[in-house]
Parts: sequence; structure tokens; C-alpha cells
Amino acid sequence: MAPLRESSGDPVLPDPPQGPLHVARARASFPWKELALFWEGEDTLRFKKAIFSALENDPLFAHPRGSRLSVEKYQELNFLRCKRVFEYDFLPVGDMLDSLPRVLALIECLGMYDWSLAVKFFLHVLTFGSAIYSSGSERHLKYLPKIFSLEIFGCFALTEVSHGSNTKGIRTTAHYDPSTQEFIIHSPDFEAAKFWVGNMGKTATHAVVFAQLYTPGGQCHGLHPFLVQIRDPKTLLPMPGVMVGDIGKKLGQNGLDNGFAMFHKVRIPRQDLLNRSGDVTPEGAYVTHVKDVGQHFSESLGSLSSGRVAIVGTSVVNLKLAVSIALRFSATRRQFGPTDKEEVPVLQYPMQQWRLLPYLAAAYALDHFFKSLFLDLGELQQGLLGKDRSVRQAELGREIHALSSAGKPLASWTAQRGIQECREACGGHGYLAMNRLGDLRDDNDPNCTYEGDNNVLLQQTSRYLLGLLARRGPGGARIESPLKTVDFLDGYADILGRRFEGSSPEDLLDSSVPLAAYEWLVCYLLRESHQKLSREKRSGKSDFEAINDCQVYHCRPLALAFLELTVVRRFHEHTHQPRVPPPLRAVLRRLSALYALWSLSQHTALLYRGGYFSGEHAGKVLESAILALCAQLKDDAVALVDVIAPPDFILDSPIGRADGELYKNLWTAVLQENKVLERASWWAEFAVNKPVIGSLKPKL
Amino acid sequence: MAPLRESSGDPVLPDPPQGPLHVARARASFPWKELALFWEGEDTLRFKKAIFSALENDPLFAHPRGSRLSVEKYQELNFLRCKRVFEYDFLPVGDMLDSLPRVLALIECLGMYDWSLAVKFFLHVLTFGSAIYSSGSERHLKYLPKIFSLEIFGCFALTEVSHGSNTKGIRTTAHYDPSTQEFIIHSPDFEAAKFWVGNMGKTATHAVVFAQLYTPGGQCHGLHPFLVQIRDPKTLLPMPGVMVGDIGKKLGQNGLDNGFAMFHKVRIPRQDLLNRSGDVTPEGAYVTHVKDVGQHFSESLGSLSSGRVAIVGTSVVNLKLAVSIALRFSATRRQFGPTDKEEVPVLQYPMQQWRLLPYLAAAYALDHFFKSLFLDLGELQQGLLGKDRSVRQAELGREIHALSSAGKPLASWTAQRGIQECREACGGHGYLAMNRLGDLRDDNDPNCTYEGDNNVLLQQTSRYLLGLLARRGPGGARIESPLKTVDFLDGYADILGRRFEGSSPEDLLDSSVPLAAYEWLVCYLLRESHQKLSREKRSGKSDFEAINDCQVYHCRPLALAFLELTVVRRFHEHTHQPRVPPPLRAVLRRLSALYALWSLSQHTALLYRGGYFSGEHAGKVLESAILALCAQLKDDAVALVDVIAPPDFILDSPIGRADGELYKNLWTAVLQENKVLERASWWAEFAVNKPVIGSLKPKL
Repeated sequence: MAPLRESSGDPVLPDPPQGPLHVARARASFPWKELALFWEGEDTLRFKKAIFSALENDPLFAHPRGSRLSVEKYQELNFLRCKRVFEYDFLPVGDMLDSLPRVLALIECLGMYDWSLAVKFFLHVLTFGSAIYSSGSERHLKYLPKIFSLEIFGCFALTEVSHGSNTKGIRTTAHYDPSTQEFIIHSPDFEAAKFWVGNMGKTATHAVVFAQLYTPGGQCHGLHPFLVQIRDPKTLLPMPGVMVGDIGKKLGQNGLDNGFAMFHKVRIPRQDLLNRSGDVTPEGAYVTHVKDVGQHFSESLGSLSSGRVAIVGTSVVNLKLAVSIALRFSATRRQFGPTDKEEVPVLQYPMQQWRLLPYLAAAYALDHFFKSLFLDLGELQQGLLGKDRSVRQAELGREIHALSSAGKPLASWTAQRGIQECREACGGHGYLAMNRLGDLRDDNDPNCTYEGDNNVLLQQTSRYLLGLLARRGPGGARIESPLKTVDFLDGYADILGRRFEGSSPEDLLDSSVPLAAYEWLVCYLLRESHQKLSREKRSGKSDFEAINDCQVYHCRPLALAFLELTVVRRFHEHTHQPRVPPPLRAVLRRLSALYALWSLSQHTALLYRGGYFSGEHAGKVLESAILALCAQLKDDAVALVDVIAPPDFILDSPIGRADGELYKNLWTAVLQENKVLERASWWAEFAVNKPVIGSLKPKL
Repeated sequence: MAPLRESSGDPVLPDPPQGPLHVARARASFPWKELALFWEGEDTLRFKKAIFSALENDPLFAHPRGSRLSVEKYQELNFLRCKRVFEYDFLPVGDMLDSLPRVLALIECLGMYDWSLAVKFFLHVLTFGSAIYSSGSERHLKYLPKIFSLEIFGCFALTEVSHGSNTKGIRTTAHYDPSTQEFIIHSPDFEAAKFWVGNMGKTATHAVVFAQLYTPGGQCHGLHPFLVQIRDPKTLLPMPGVMVGDIGKKLGQNGLDNGFAMFHKVRIPRQDLLNRSGDVTPEGAYVTHVKDVGQHFSESLGSLSSGRVAIVGTSVVNLKLAVSIALRFSATRRQFGPTDKEEVPVLQYPMQQWRLLPYLAAAYALDHFFKSLFLDLGELQQGLLGKDRSVRQAELGREIHALSSAGKPLASWTAQRGIQECREACGGHGYLAMNRLGDLRDDNDPNCTYEGDNNVLLQQTSRYLLGLLARRGPGGARIESPLKTVDFLDGYADILGRRFEGSSPEDLLDSSVPLAAYEWLVCYLLRESHQKLSREKRSGKSDFEAINDCQVYHCRPLALAFLELTVVRRFHEHTHQPRVPPPLRAVLRRLSALYALWSLSQHTALLYRGGYFSGEHAGKVLESAILALCAQLKDDAVALVDVIAPPDFILDSPIGRADGELYKNLWTAVLQENKVLERASWWAEFAVNKPVIGSLKPKL
């Protein structure tokens, strides 16, 4: 393969530096640069390299990491970096819709550097910008250039102190006053304060505020978005009637200023209602062109999905970084050995392989799933922009809603657990902040919560699946969907009759076996959920109660298993397609099989319970196959990491550097810290001011 | 029950404040004060109350929490608080051995306040102090009063940069020089630097340093402890030849100064070898009174166990705090409801119950296990001090080693997962630092790593169990142990023939059913592990390889299941004893059953695979019973939290305060933060210094 080169002449994929990891790399079964090219494509590789190089060469992006600064300092630095990203203008906004892979790459690059930066940038440009673009109309287009020139800075204000998941319960009001042609935005009390809003804490000048719209006479027309100026762009001081501030330190992402706002009868022009779905005439009449609640619903599903899909990507990036650090550490850290004299790298232990390699496989499988789902979402959004009112478009909206509603939980949880496992697998060194696993865990954590709590979101997916089954009925229509993720359900009854057919671990070394098992599992859980829900309803429970009583052991695992199946299926197809270069086939298929079997092994109890598995042998074969795949992949692990890890500067973890000089890198970093060897400023409190022992002893 | 009163006349158990949680408390099935008295005992309740009151009334202990300060400021404050604890002298060291429950209570109270403080205090007093006391001899007793008067400050230096779990690989050396009667302590390179040592970063003047002892002629006698002065107590400046510093920010516990040290040929007097197990004569001959490696080993197991047992307790405290916060939040946070007008507390949802109540049950079950194990450890240490050389004493050492080696993993993982679940169950508010769930997670995290990596430690327990089976052999001796935790294995063959007998969820509402299942499970895993290990050895693998190849799906689950069984058994016995007051019986038995069934449900796949369960029904009954217990316990949850939660000042979580004024408390705390409403100091960077978009655009 001829080396790809940047415009500077530097190679796009430089050889890794020499060092102790060289030995591990030499054992790889495949050429990692070829996999990088296959996995990312040449344009994306070049684009990422250019971004990484720009950041590395700019002193504003020099570390230490923000979590080691004060929150105030971190927020300042993060804003300056955000502004600098506008100066770099890596991807002009006008080009975004035409080059989705570059959008993906930009999110990934900024996120790999620091999520506080990426989130600050994208909340302003994409979330705020597209809320105006897609919820507003002609009259709001004037705001868009101001976003891209940083004349204004935006945020998206939906969540309130007392309402997150239940958006219907939002209590901010917007009363229309025809006498001045203004809306009066008002927070009735502090429980209705907007809260958690990213960029609102210190930076935003404008907010898209969701409020209950009231017309004169007191009729409520439900939640609508309004563009509200909250600070003066010339001074960053709050506008009259707006109490706005920072909610304080969070577990992570502290470079981002999450804020709150209370509105005290703040008047805004009538025109600042974002009026795509409903408007108010100057006289105060409510008008809407949305005729069909279903259509409105399916349109809004599309915009909800984009946040969730983005979180799938965010989670995947975090998982990639964590496994990169932990696997390079494990390939160089030696502990114990066959004799007292000889210690082996901890990655040689089956236990360490089993702890880490499935998460490496998950990073690949979920990365592919994210990219494919992002393209699906692009198709959906093209349709929305083109005002496609077809049945297919509506079905696509529902399918993507179902995929993103379970995709976000699966990806965020897999990343959160994976990062914790990586942290522990690096022992004490994983607990040292400079090695970054703590920041990854803390920055990933909100992915489990925002854009919908994971457990609550999963209900959307199970409802979709139960709805398909109900629509089918006896002799009903085929089950099919635009992306074909549910088409297999058409064979529901047949699939339920299937039984496990692997008889030796070798039979399971391809992902087709777990794929078949997953189809059975989803059908089984669908049947169980359907029957349980019917029983609960027949017993006289309300729908609300009946659905709640079916979540824990029915609908929740149903939604997760369906999503796992989809991830497994897409990765299986991707790794088995003819255009996979022959030298990459074996390793990619092993990753596919490992992810599939490892995921499936969480459900072994159900496989037995429902009769898909029987006898001791099936469960043992599954375990043996997982361990066999780990053993086959262990020598490829470092090269697989080289494909997904960013340059050392971006990865920013002494124990995860590409040269594998574990202790030298660690020691250098320790000695570079602030006041490492200096005596504590409070030394006299020990040396001179001695306590009188027991002088304050309480009576007991 | 007559109210207990402090010496001040204040009640020891004050009524909770009025507020929204009042409704939830009124629904409890039992009197919480009676449970508090039963659970803790009167003396402990009084003692804890006195400590909590002292801290609350002392401005030095005023918050904000340390994690929101700079590391430097936090370390200073933590040292001052540690010194203040000496002034309070809550429990004079001389009384510690005679009042183990008070030692427990002191650890719990200081830890509930802040682990950085508790760990700093106990590392100095207990770890450093008892290392000198138990590893040294007469000539070292002079150091003890200096510890308790803070003339010196100590640390325990075993781990090195490149060696943690494998202590045999420690590379610091101590060469004896008879010409000056000194040992020369030396670190050959930075990989052999002592690292992670608590208190070493900024405070310690003395360290117990483990080094390989060499006598003249070059013979190595293995690892021995030496007392090495590392700083001048008058100035806190390092001693000549000692490079000592702070390792930098960690994920948590940043009030504690973890440090490193390299020794460059540092000379210490011959007498500062802690010579209990081996000594060197003035001329340089190595002498030891330890005749029997087994005896030495069993003695050292005892001292290793104490650190691990302490970590069980630490983990339990963290879990108690986390469930207290999350359950009070869940009983007051409302979201969705049967109608749009009416929202219900999220604790009413079976999903939220299932996420949290098993962890509440785990907090009780593991708390009881910890206290009982601590008393067992006390018995072991009494024997060691009394130089008990009996077979029973040695067996007790082995049994406690096995229990603590799996107890630490089980407790630390349960706490870590529980805290994460609590964090997520509180949604965004759980992600706000002030609500403390992040600190709990970060402070608990190292429990999974130090005193032995969890996965490595579990091998000690499985080895113990496999050893018992091997000793039994055909027609061999009975299997029994001083604490009777393994006596059931005597019925190994019979137990393996048992089958599940519950036919309805009601049958499972008592912990005797899961107890029986656990006995079967442990026997099954023991047989499987034994057979697998034999097969691997017969196949020609070395012991090292064979054992490593049996960990993932055999020895690891064996060790965990054995420990779960022990916890379940002890909690079952505690809750079923006749002296449980009648009003408490129902609720305690429900907790016992819920913990047992929920733990067991992780192993359902094995129950099916090995034939203990058969048919769909068994698995469904298990699930139904767990949900039924959750539903039965949900109205008791707030009262159960009142028993284990510390006063509001100590719990220090706005969303977890006892009055349940969720939003008022949160809002107050938000507005009390620093510069909440103030404009960012860098406002001009937005308002004035506008970027030129694309001015730095790289060539792509």
C-alpha cells in the first residue's frame, strides 16, 4: 500500500514509534494501515489528521486536561478553544449536509480531544442552529449567519428543575399579548426554572426556550419553542427579567457551562415564536398547518433522534479511547509469571483478555452501527427537508426513533461499563487522573441520562416492536421496515421453533450462530412481553399500570436484545461482505463473532429458560468459544488499537502512549506536575503547631 | 420506646424534620428507631451521635466538599481536620482493642464525612502503627507514643511503580553494612520507586519500607519491613538521599496525599529493621525464629486480612450513603403519572424499585456481614497477639483470608455498581457534583484495586475451596472450619443431587430457598472448577497455565458465589433469630430474601445449565418473587434509609436531605455556589475580541 500523505508531505498514517510495543505489533495477523483505510476511508483519514495536527500545533490546545483546572479557568479555556475552532473552520456549515462522514469525523476529533469543547461547539452550531432552522421559518433565517459568525451564542432550553423525561409537564409559560404583539415568557416558580442547559451558564446570549403557549382567553396550545434573548452580546450581562446563572460543578464536562434561567414576565416580539408547527396571528388567533397529529409526531421524532444518534457516537468514541489506553497498558505491564524470574504482560492472562477484548470488539461493532445509523438519519432528514410526506418516510422516522431510543442506552451503558473495566484493568495507574480513564468515565456518564433516561427511552423501542406484532395479527400484513431491521419478525412463529445447533466451540466462531440465537431471543421476549401485557390488562389494570408492570423483565430486555441483534447483524454483514480486503477478513470476523457471543452470553439464562439451549453442553460451548476468540485476538489487540486510537497528543494518557514506554512516560508526567517535590505550604501546621491530644474530647 | 438522650439532653435519634417525605415515612410497616437500636446497639448510637455532633459544630468541618477545592487546598484542610481528630480523641488508642464496635463506628463516622480524612487518620494510626507493633519488637515500642502524639507521621510503603499485586517482585534493596551497623536502602531505578503510598506525598516523616534484605556476601533473604525516616519532623523537608513527592491528582480521595519515594543509598541504623520475623546480627548474620513457613504464612495472612476487611466496611458505608440519597430523591421526585395532571413519585415505578431496592437490601446484608467478619478478625488478632500456635488458629487465619479475599471484591463491586445505579436513578440531578454521588463513586473506586486487585484476590478464595475438596478426598476427613462457612461442603455429593423446589413466588419470599440454591451452586462450581483444573493439568499444561485457564468461567464465579452464600447465610440467620423484635421481623426477612434472590438471579444461567432449575417456570418464579419483594419493601424504603443515613450535615446532599424538600434544598444550594450569577471574567473574549471565521483554516 503506498503511503497516504498530507498536504504538508507528512504521512497520514505514520508508523508507530519504536518501543516496547513493537514486539506486540509484530505479532499482528494483519496490516493495520490497510484496516485503517478500509475502516475510515481515505478522505476521512486525511480530514482527521488535519484536525489533529492543527490542535497539536496550537499552544491554546496544550494540556493539562481541564479536569485538573478550576472550573472557572476550564470554562474560560474551553470558550477560547471553541472560538479558535471557528477560526479553523474545519468544516464550513454549508458543507455539512453534503459530507456526513466529515461531520462524523469532526465530532469524533473534537470529542477525542475534549467533550466539553465538542459539546459547546455543537450545541451552539448544530442543536441551537438546527432548532431555529427546522422549527422556525423564513423570518428566522436572519439568525443563522449570526450563529456562524459568533455574533450571538445559543443554547437549547427544554429541561426544567422538576421536569426532564416528562416534557409534557414543562411549566414555563408564554402568554400572547395582542396589545403589544408580544409573548410574555414566565417561570411560575423555581421548579419551573430551565436547568441543565448547556452554554447557558456563562456564555449564551440567546436561548430556544420551550414554553406552554397561551392565547388571549387562556387557551393552552401546548409546548412551543421561542427564541429568547437572555444576555446582551455587547456585555454578556443578563437581559431585564432574566435570572440566569451556572448550575455549578458536575461530575464531568466542566468546561461546558450548564446553566439555569428563570424568566420574570420577559416580553419578546411575536415573531420570535419558532412557528413551523404553529403560529399566532397579530390579533392572537392560533393557527397551524399541521393537520395530522401522526405527521407532526413523526416529524418531531426525527429531530429527537438526532440527539440520541449523536450520543451513540459520543459513547463509541469514549469506549475507543478507554480500550486503547487499557490494551496498550496491558501489553506492556508485566506481573507474575511462570517463574519468579520471568514476568509476563498482563494481556497474556485469559482473565485480562476476557475483561478487555470484548470491549474492543464492542468498540468496532458499535462504531460501525453508529456510522450506519448516522447515514440512515441523514436520509430521514433529507426527507424532512424535502417535505416528504410518504408512508415510507413516516415509517423510516418510526424505525430510526426505535433504533436510536435503544441505541443510546446500549452504547452509553456499554461505554460506561467498558471504561470502568478499563479503569480497573489498569489497577492503581488507572486511578491516576493523568491517565484519563476517570475523565472518560465522568464525561461519558451523562450519556446515560440526557436526551432521555436510558431505562425510560427503552420503552419507546419495545412499544415499537409490540406495535408491529399487534399490526400483524392473524393473517395480517407482512412485517417490514425501510431499514429492514424488523423484517425477520415475519418469521416469528418459525423462529420460535428453532433450537441451538452448535455442537463444538468451532461452530460458534462465526457470528452467524449468535445471530440466529438473537433472532430467537428477540422473538421469545416479544412473545413473553406481549403475553404479559395482555395478562396485566385483562387483570383489570390501567394501561399505565400494565405497561409499568411489564418493564423490568420483559420490555426492557426486549428492547436491548433487539438493538444488540441489530448491531450484531450490521457488523456481521459489514465483516462478511466481499469488498473486505482478504488480509482483514479473519480478524474482522473474529471481532464480529466475539462481540456477538459476548453480548449473547448475558442472555444465557433466557436461552435455557425458553428451551433454545438445553443440556450442559450448550452453555459450555458458548463460554469456550468466547475464550477461544479472546485467545485468537490477543495478538491483534495492539494493532487493532492502532487503527482506532488518535495520536498520543490527543489520547493524552501516559500509560496509553503508542511507544509503550509505560514507566518512562508515567514518571515523566508525574515529575512535570505542579509542585511535586515541593514542601506543603502548610508544613508548619505539622512541624510547629502541635495539637493537644484529647483537648476537645466530647463527653460520651 | 423511651427516647435515648445524649449527655447534652438532645435525643440520640431525633425525629426526622417535617416535609414531603413525611407521607412516605407514615407508610412504613415498622418503627425505624427500634430498628436503629436493634441494628446498632445503644452504645454505638450514642458514640456515633457524639462524633457527628462534634463535626457538625466545628467550623473546620464546614463544607464545601473537598472535590470542589484545589488539590492543594483540600490536602491542607484534610491535614488540619486530621489533627483536629486527635484533639477530639474520640477513641483513645488503648481502648481500641477492647471496643471493636466503637472502632467500627469511628471508621464509619469519619468515612461518611470524608474518606480522605478517614484514610489519612487510619493509615497513620492503624496501618503504620500496627505495622510497627506487629512486625517490630521491644526496641520499636518507643515509636508508638510518637505516633499518637503526632510527633511523627507515618506511611506504609510496599507498592512500587512496576509492582503491586506481585509483591515478590518488589525491587527496593536493603544491604547490610557491618562496618557501620547500618542498612543501605536503595531504589535501583524509577520502576522500583515506592508509589501510591498514602500520606507519603506531603505529610509523612517516617515510612515502613519493604525491601529485599541482603547480608554481606550477597545473600538475599526476601522482603522485610524497615522503618525509614523520610522527612525532618521539624521542617517537613526530605532527608538526604530521599526523593519524595506527590503522585498527582487521582480520580478521588484527593485530600489524601499519595506519594512516591526513591532512595539513593539511604543509611538507617540496624535497629530499624522491623525484626519480628527475621533479624540481622551486628556482624551481619541473618537469624530467624520462624521455623515453619506455614506458620509464618498463616500469621501474615491475618495482617493482610485486616486491610481487606476494612475495605469491605468502607464499601458498605459508600453504598449506604448512595442508596440513602437515591431513595429519598426517588420518594419525592415525581415524573409522569396515570393522567397528565397527576404525577407520581418515581419510586412508585416497578423499574425504579428494581433498580434501587436490591442495593438497599445489599447495604443491610453486607453491613451485617462486615460487622460479623470484623469480630471474627478480632478473634484472629487476639490469637496472634497471644501467640496462639494451635491448629484452630491457623485454620481461622486461612478461613478469614478466604472470606476477606472474596469479601473485598464482592463489597467493592456491589458498592461501585450500586453507586452508579443510584447516580443514574437520580437523572441529571445525580450528575450534579453537590449531590455527592460522583464523590462516592470516585472515592469507592480504589476499593476495587488496592490491597489486591479484585480479580487477582478471588483466586485466593477459590484456591482455599479447591484445597478443602482435595484434602477431603475419598473417605477423607470432614470438611469443617472454625467459622463454619464451609461445613456444608461435607454434604457435597448430596447437595449436588438437589433440585429447585419452589413452585410459586410465595415459596421464594423467604431466604431459605435461595440459601439452598446457593449451596447447590457453590458445590456445582466447585466440581466444575476441580474437573476443569484436572483436565488442564492432564493435558500437559504447567500449574501456572492450568490455573490461569480456569479463572474466567470457573474459579472466579466459584469464589464470588461462595462469598454471596456466606453473606446470604449470615444475614438469613441474623434476621431469623429469636431476639429480633417482632415488629421488625417482616421487614428484615424481606430484605434478606430480596438480597438473596437478587444475587442468585445473576446465576440463573448456571442453575439451568447444571439442572437445578428446569422448565420455564423456575426462572419466572424467581423474577416474580424479586418484583413482589420490591413492591412489599417500597413503602418501607424511606424508613429503612432513616436507619442507615447519617445526619444531613454528614450526608451533605441537597437531594438527599431528610426533609425531602428536594427542589428547595437544591435551589438553595445552587444559589450558594461561588459566582453563580456573576458574569464570566472573560466576557470580553466573546463581546469584543471576535474571531475571523476560517482565518486559520488548514489545507485539507
